[in-house]
Amino acid sequence: MTTVYFNGKFIPKEEVKISPDDRGFMFGDGIYEVVRWYEGFFYDIKSHVSRLGRSLRELRINWIDHSTFPSIANELIKTNGLWNKPAMVYLQVTRGSAKRTHSFPSPEVTPTIYAYAWEFVPNTPSKEEGIKVMIKEDIRWSRCDIKSVALLANTMSFQEAHESGLKECVFVRNGLFTEGSRSNIFFVIEGTLFTHPESNHILSGVTRKNVLRIAEEAGIEIREEAVQENRINDIQEAFITNTSAEVTPVIEFGGNPLGDGIPGKITRLIQEKFDAEIMDSRG
Amino acid sequence: MTTVYFNGKFIPKEEVKISPDDRGFMFGDGIYEVVRWYEGFFYDIKSHVSRLGRSLRELRINWIDHSTFPSIANELIKTNGLWNKPAMVYLQVTRGSAKRTHSFPSPEVTPTIYAYAWEFVPNTPSKEEGIKVMIKEDIRWSRCDIKSVALLANTMSFQEAHESGLKECVFVRNGLFTEGSRSNIFFVIEGTLFTHPESNHILSGVTRKNVLRIAEEAGIEIREEAVQENRINDIQEAFITNTSAEVTPVIEFGGNPLGDGIPGKITRLIQEKFDAEIMDSRG
Repeated sequence: MTTVYFNGKFIPKEEVKISPDDRGFMFGDGIYEVVRWYEGFFYDIKSHVSRLGRSLRELRINWIDHSTFPSIANELIKTNGLWNKPAMVYLQVTRGSAKRTHSFPSPEVTPTIYAYAWEFVPNTPSKEEGIKVMIKEDIRWSRCDIKSVALLANTMSFQEAHESGLKECVFVRNGLFTEGSRSNIFFVIEGTLFTHPESNHILSGVTRKNVLRIAEEAGIEIREEAVQENRINDIQEAFITNTSAEVTPVIEFGGNPLGDGIPGKITRLIQEKFDAEIMDSRG
Repeated sequence: MTTVYFNGKFIPKEEVKISPDDRGFMFGDGIYEVVRWYEGFFYDIKSHVSRLGRSLRELRINWIDHSTFPSIANELIKTNGLWNKPAMVYLQVTRGSAKRTHSFPSPEVTPTIYAYAWEFVPNTPSKEEGIKVMIKEDIRWSRCDIKSVALLANTMSFQEAHESGLKECVFVRNGLFTEGSRSNIFFVIEGTLFTHPESNHILSGVTRKNVLRIAEEAGIEIREEAVQENRINDIQEAFITNTSAEVTPVIEFGGNPLGDGIPGKITRLIQEKFDAEIMDSRG
């Protein structure tokens, strides 16, 4: 039996009842976080809590206890017997249930809070061999910095990649590569590491931030600058980052093999350092 | 007690249980329709059913029985004692419930179908006196032609108007007026009626389509052409259209009074003809 967290209680999943009036269901009016459990600790949960707080503030959803997320996540791991396993915890917070109207409920209603944990099987082949990704015009809204559940554009785009046998869809907006449908993307051009700067067109990924730190510590030259689509032939290496993919090499980008069609050297270096930090934390 | 429609059954609203795995709740992965009941008939329900079919096709949600929407709507009106009242019916269809992953569930799952009816109080003062609206950059995605429930951008924008005491927020994209957060918009410039053409940047409104027909029948010159933001001072009249607002005059646009700050002549003409058609249909 799966135990989940729902509005202050740990209950069997079957007992969760989302109202059809929930603004998550009717408007996509909510946000989420996903954290990775490494058999003993959550990866940089501080950054997840901080981003959670920002998402809530941006949407003016008042979950005052959002700093309790780590203890909720911990409890879900324990209760579901995942302590010694690789796992994930998903948290979703919506504005709550109210009579349908575009404006926010007035007076305010209680947010809906739902979280669950599951055993996670890392995609080791993708991390080792690299993945192929497609390129597609960014059809999403202009507030991709908010980790909202209004993800229809992401799911449609990812589905297109999935049906082409590809593992991610990377977006282009105004001629610039922004990010993937569920990941950030990094490029190596002439030894320099490029990634789109923080802006309203990308999500500020927790793994992205840590990879930038790791790359800096390793003495790699970094430019938080968007790469133009027309520089595609200059790209020697690429990799995507997110909580589940960690650092996953891209070996084919929009139909073109990158480098020699195998994960690049700088990608491997960052991947090794990322993995080493996890090992160290595990102790 | 409110009776609603949920997955093939008419049940008390309290018994509806949306799963937290519903893709409507987790991804905004669903679509909706709202139809107006005029004490005896639904307004142009054929067009709503046709748009419903299109939305479902665009998202590849397989509700094969979507042509039953009118009979579901009728039953909701009857069961809830709304036959002789002005009312609305809301219908939402999501891709259904499945383990969370961006790609569409494979094998396919059964869509979630939810509909309810309510007594509707028309906003007569707004229709008579006109409304004030704000102008705001369009932050929505690029598939506004799909009537999806991923409406977070719309709710955020509408809320901003609402808090400023305004009744709608009209969007500008690439320097062109597109539509409102929950309505289409028409402008009168030198006696010609302008509205944004059908495209991926606007919803093809049922009222919009009928207003274009009515205007044509009335011999008004029409141009389905986007109006540039920098022509704002040339706008003599404006009105918004949607299923609940019908034809509602705009008397202040982005802080500037339109015409004499009262509903314009062409707006009034179209409004009268629209209302006359409803009266005629009522018999």
